[in-house]
Amino acid sequence: MQDETWTKSEKAVARRAFDAALDREYTALTDEVRRRANSIAEPHHIWALHDFLTRTRKDLDQKYDYRYSQLDFVFARLILDGWLSEAELTGLAEEKLARIRSLLDMWREDLIACPGSR
Amino acid sequence: MQDETWTKSEKAVARRAFDAALDREYTALTDEVRRRANSIAEPHHIWALHDFLTRTRKDLDQKYDYRYSQLDFVFARLILDGWLSEAELTGLAEEKLARIRSLLDMWREDLIACPGSR
Repeated sequence: MQDETWTKSEKAVARRAFDAALDREYTALTDEVRRRANSIAEPHHIWALHDFLTRTRKDLDQKYDYRYSQLDFVFARLILDGWLSEAELTGLAEEKLARIRSLLDMWREDLIACPGSR
Repeated sequence: MQDETWTKSEKAVARRAFDAALDREYTALTDEVRRRANSIAEPHHIWALHDFLTRTRKDLDQKYDYRYSQLDFVFARLILDGWLSEAELTGLAEEKLARIRSLLDMWREDLIACPGSR
């Protein structure tokens, strides 16, 4: 996807979808951090929480890449992982949706590996 | 302090004091991790907790150094920071206690800096 091929209204759809997925991940992450914190019974549970946060921070930094050249991969992965629905991308041009569906089909059929996906 | 100058009963006193202080730090750390986790209101609070754990892990790794050559510094610092009382070192030879008190006096009077102390 090239920057110049994104209309103003498509950019608004993309931004809203991106932010909604990120917000859902943060909500789930907050719940998970609280669950782990409130379950600490041994010192090593503290460091397991630290390791979990180190991994998650790196994963989120890599995954939420808002370059237009990357958004088809980003959205396909967010749909694959359940953080976004295809319906939230309504308003994008059909060729963009087709590329996203094509990636999803390949990942779901394991024809190509989705890097870092759960 | 050299290994060969520690009697068996002194080693038992040292181990008990060391473990008691570490246990108190872990208890306080668990409380602090829970307090921070349950106060998360924004995503950046999650990463502030992560940064806090990174610093604390490094601090504890450096501070709890059970080499006999380091124990006078370790115990003086634990007393300075309130994790250990001098009374818990009863049973160590007087020259060891004198070295620990001497370090504490210097740190308390700021004659020399205590590395990493709160």
